[in-house]
Amino acid sequence: TIEHVFKEIFKAGLELQEDDHRKALLVSRKKKPENTIVELKGERIGDGKPHLVFGPCAVESYEQVATVADAVRGKGLKLLRGGAFKPRTSPYDFQGLGLEGLKILKRIGDEFDLAVISEIVSPADIEVAVDYLDVIQIGARNMQNFELLKAAGAVNKPILLKRGISATIEEFINAAEYIMAQGNGQIILCERGIRTYERATRNTLDISAVPILKQETHLPVLVDVTHSTGRRDLLLPAAKAALAIGADGVMAEVHPDPAVALSDNAQQMDLKQFDEFMNELRSFAFARV
Amino acid sequence: TIEHVFKEIFKAGLELQEDDHRKALLVSRKKKPENTIVELKGERIGDGKPHLVFGPCAVESYEQVATVADAVRGKGLKLLRGGAFKPRTSPYDFQGLGLEGLKILKRIGDEFDLAVISEIVSPADIEVAVDYLDVIQIGARNMQNFELLKAAGAVNKPILLKRGISATIEEFINAAEYIMAQGNGQIILCERGIRTYERATRNTLDISAVPILKQETHLPVLVDVTHSTGRRDLLLPAAKAALAIGADGVMAEVHPDPAVALSDNAQQMDLKQFDEFMNELRSFAFARV
Amino acid sequence: TIEHVFKEIFKAGLELQEDDHRKALLVSRKKKPENTIVELKGERIGDGKPHLVFGPCAVESYEQVATVADAVRGKGLKLLRGGAFKPRTSPYDFQGLGLEGLKILKRIGDEFDLAVISEIVSPADIEVAVDYLDVIQIGARNMQNFELLKAAGAVNKPILLKRGISATIEEFINAAEYIMAQGNGQIILCERGIRTYERATRNTLDISAVPILKQETHLPVLVDVTHSTGRRDLLLPAAKAALAIGADGVMAEVHPDPAVALSDNAQQMDLKQFDEFMNELRSFAFARV
Amino acid sequence: TIEHVFKEIFKAGLELQEDDHRKALLVSRKKKPENTIVELKGERIGDGKPHLVFGPCAVESYEQVATVADAVRGKGLKLLRGGAFKPRTSPYDFQGLGLEGLKILKRIGDEFDLAVISEIVSPADIEVAVDYLDVIQIGARNMQNFELLKAAGAVNKPILLKRGISATIEEFINAAEYIMAQGNGQIILCERGIRTYERATRNTLDISAVPILKQETHLPVLVDVTHSTGRRDLLLPAAKAALAIGADGVMAEVHPDPAVALSDNAQQMDLKQFDEFMNELRSFAFARV
Repeated sequence: TIEHVFKEIFKAGLELQEDDHRKALLVSRKKKPENTIVELKGERIGDGKPHLVFGPCAVESYEQVATVADAVRGKGLKLLRGGAFKPRTSPYDFQGLGLEGLKILKRIGDEFDLAVISEIVSPADIEVAVDYLDVIQIGARNMQNFELLKAAGAVNKPILLKRGISATIEEFINAAEYIMAQGNGQIILCERGIRTYERATRNTLDISAVPILKQETHLPVLVDVTHSTGRRDLLLPAAKAALAIGADGVMAEVHPDPAVALSDNAQQMDLKQFDEFMNELRSFAFARV
Repeated sequence: TIEHVFKEIFKAGLELQEDDHRKALLVSRKKKPENTIVELKGERIGDGKPHLVFGPCAVESYEQVATVADAVRGKGLKLLRGGAFKPRTSPYDFQGLGLEGLKILKRIGDEFDLAVISEIVSPADIEVAVDYLDVIQIGARNMQNFELLKAAGAVNKPILLKRGISATIEEFINAAEYIMAQGNGQIILCERGIRTYERATRNTLDISAVPILKQETHLPVLVDVTHSTGRRDLLLPAAKAALAIGADGVMAEVHPDPAVALSDNAQQMDLKQFDEFMNELRSFAFARV
Repeated sequence: TIEHVFKEIFKAGLELQEDDHRKALLVSRKKKPENTIVELKGERIGDGKPHLVFGPCAVESYEQVATVADAVRGKGLKLLRGGAFKPRTSPYDFQGLGLEGLKILKRIGDEFDLAVISEIVSPADIEVAVDYLDVIQIGARNMQNFELLKAAGAVNKPILLKRGISATIEEFINAAEYIMAQGNGQIILCERGIRTYERATRNTLDISAVPILKQETHLPVLVDVTHSTGRRDLLLPAAKAALAIGADGVMAEVHPDPAVALSDNAQQMDLKQFDEFMNELRSFAFARV
Repeated sequence: TIEHVFKEIFKAGLELQEDDHRKALLVSRKKKPENTIVELKGERIGDGKPHLVFGPCAVESYEQVATVADAVRGKGLKLLRGGAFKPRTSPYDFQGLGLEGLKILKRIGDEFDLAVISEIVSPADIEVAVDYLDVIQIGARNMQNFELLKAAGAVNKPILLKRGISATIEEFINAAEYIMAQGNGQIILCERGIRTYERATRNTLDISAVPILKQETHLPVLVDVTHSTGRRDLLLPAAKAALAIGADGVMAEVHPDPAVALSDNAQQMDLKQFDEFMNELRSFAFARV
């Protein structure tokens, strides 16, 4: 019938449209089928093996970061994160040490031979950050701060891009495209939970985003288990789920003394909990069906 | 200071209140620390090993279900699901075979030695269903149909309770309590995705709900990977994540010919895809860190 | 170009599909352009004038309801609501007086010459309710309890259908269609807020749903300002917005002594607040631009 | 009983805590009970009367903006908006004319004696914008771009702050506090819809946010009816609801020829629709109960 023909044309048109759109993106698998690999002090994020990133929510002092760096190094890991510029809901909350924090991270990175990752929140600071950091993080609140994305795309430095608090996967991919369109293809995506009605967790970890992002783009994908759950007791199970579903790595917060942390003290691991986390993750036996 | 004392009292009061509330529930770990195990034809759901449930979205005919049952049996599995009463958004969509469907499932269960699971949507049908089914399912739309929950609590038959489309974990646990308060403690919980703004998946699989439900209750927890993702290409990764995070099992839809299925044809696996799914899940090597 | 032609066909096909779908529904404006009017003791809901419904969350005693009925009557209003069967999250919360509550409402309706409205939660109770109530309410949790909808469609009694807690407008319209498809077209729709991430209100009043429902269907639309906001201080502003946007009426909870109410005590108005609410609503001067 | 005393102390503690927190904010009513009024070419936003803002989504040319400005002026209105820097999901969509757009707006403002409003997206552009604009807009995607908020707080120019796409009311108020904490208290808040699961509208207009923001802060509150609904047919009803609930004004998009607009062509009014919108809004008779 004529109606059936119409429907077939309709479907063909729909697929055509979608194809067109996706084909255009530089970050898409259609444009580049093989995985992008981001090299950091010998770790190759995106190589199919899991990579772990730890560190305190905020850089508070050299000693604090050094204590964590030592623990990280002791486990044979190479990636350290810590916040120097802290975007906070209230202007009266601790805003981070700023440039001072970046200097501490740089010194720690050199002394402990670690790759250091920190968030930058202003386009003007991106160029400065290049000298101090191994990876520049764009945080969830700034995922659609397009001026910041463009500035990040203009430097020769890996970028860790976190998903916005209520960004769709499509918007997330387009945010990465903003960076790559400026010439910088060294991008690591990071799922960190989305805002939903559920209150048992701080955010809702959208675990399905991981395989979708791996399919749609050629970029490595991490899961931030700290911000997605907001609960210390869920870090280990969430990390297992992330690795099982194909994430290229996991990020979590570790602080020498979470109780006195200047931010997010309810969700960071202390060093003993970090030990247990690593031991259990390394000895995890996947249940056979 | 007086303020500090106040805050301590405040915190103590808060914990007291929460403790009180949780202590009361029959489904809580506080009430019963050991796992509830639901036995179905030798499979012990809740015993720490993963259990798999497959079957078509809707029971369409004896032949259709038998084909799937044969495949399920051929893989050494024991659990079959199929919808006889189908709650559908539109009154003009296929509503299921009803009692005829239950009879088909009963016959299949006997012939293939499988435990059969099907949804019941009316309190009046619960008693009838007892004679035909091994497990009575309460669907997502009926999670707070309290009359149905009470009827399910009054029979001696395992209940599979699905999380409501936008139910909080607390509401989900209370829905289970409605059943157990009537005397029936043979309850299996099932996370099936929640409604969020994200459109890349049919629902958002709330994977963190699994460890929370395992902590808060003593009941087994399954993950329905079909309804949570709504995408055939995500069934396998979601199943891996579910088992890694500690689910007691996974549920997925299999249909001999999804293209002609009377419902949900975009998300069911055909028999070849079912083979691949099982092979890949059984040979899955968890990535070591 | 060929591509442009394709796109035009595509758009035409899209509109055709949507048209087809909507044309089919009995509740749609396409099927019946003029407004459905539901008559209740002389009030004609859907006639273009606003109608107000008040009453306690739950029927607790004859005296309690009579006090409110007297106040409602004193303001020249004709519509009274009160819950006899209360669907509650926890099985241990007050579940309502049941049949006893219906009898109280019937007596009050007769004595005060008011139309009485109450929620029914089980298909089996619908026929019973017909003898006691002027309007049968289907609550938010049961909006997709299709067996209940069908039972409501089979009686000759107006139905007040509340939107589900996370129902789309399309699902809401289809739920009404379940009732009308059984022969009962005396349906009043009620927007009562949807579940979102925002916590400042109990739910988020989706005020835009009102004009959409008025456009898409021929049914009257009320707004429940109590459940949508969950805050006594927002009842009056929300009522103004509802009437301004074209709702056929407003529903709100009034209790003689909210502090001792057996349910929802934080959001009900007492009699003095009810007086003020009515005075302010009646004297409201819409701001001119 | 001791338990009762505990609960009373608990409640007192809770209120104390909340009080403390709110008292601190400069934007709060507690700090300043009387309304802040922002003066713009004789219009006093926040004076209790409704104020209307119109203009095209994007500034495309002098002629395009002049056509709209002429229509706005012709209705006795004084406020014009138009986007010069356009934050777009895809880097390949039209990004606005930038500084050229600001110059067009400045010229239009002078020629038609209108106050002009436009969004600024980079901290570095705030100071430049001061010379061209009467009001600097911070858009939804940048509501938690704290560097931009701080830069906006450091200039002597009214700021129009839009609510983030999934910002809580509390986060919105704190974003305003970021501006005021830098010394600039000339802030207009703008509700523009939040992201929810509902797809019938582009966003869900959170109408209850208006009275809450009016209660909690002393700042004027507008409602952007274009972005909250995304539907031309809902602009008028949404505007009525906004004014009825107490908004200080309404914002909507008007374009000489929406079909060829470079952005958002499905939701802008053309000049004839703008005429009708104004006529109907001005002749609107609020339904009496």
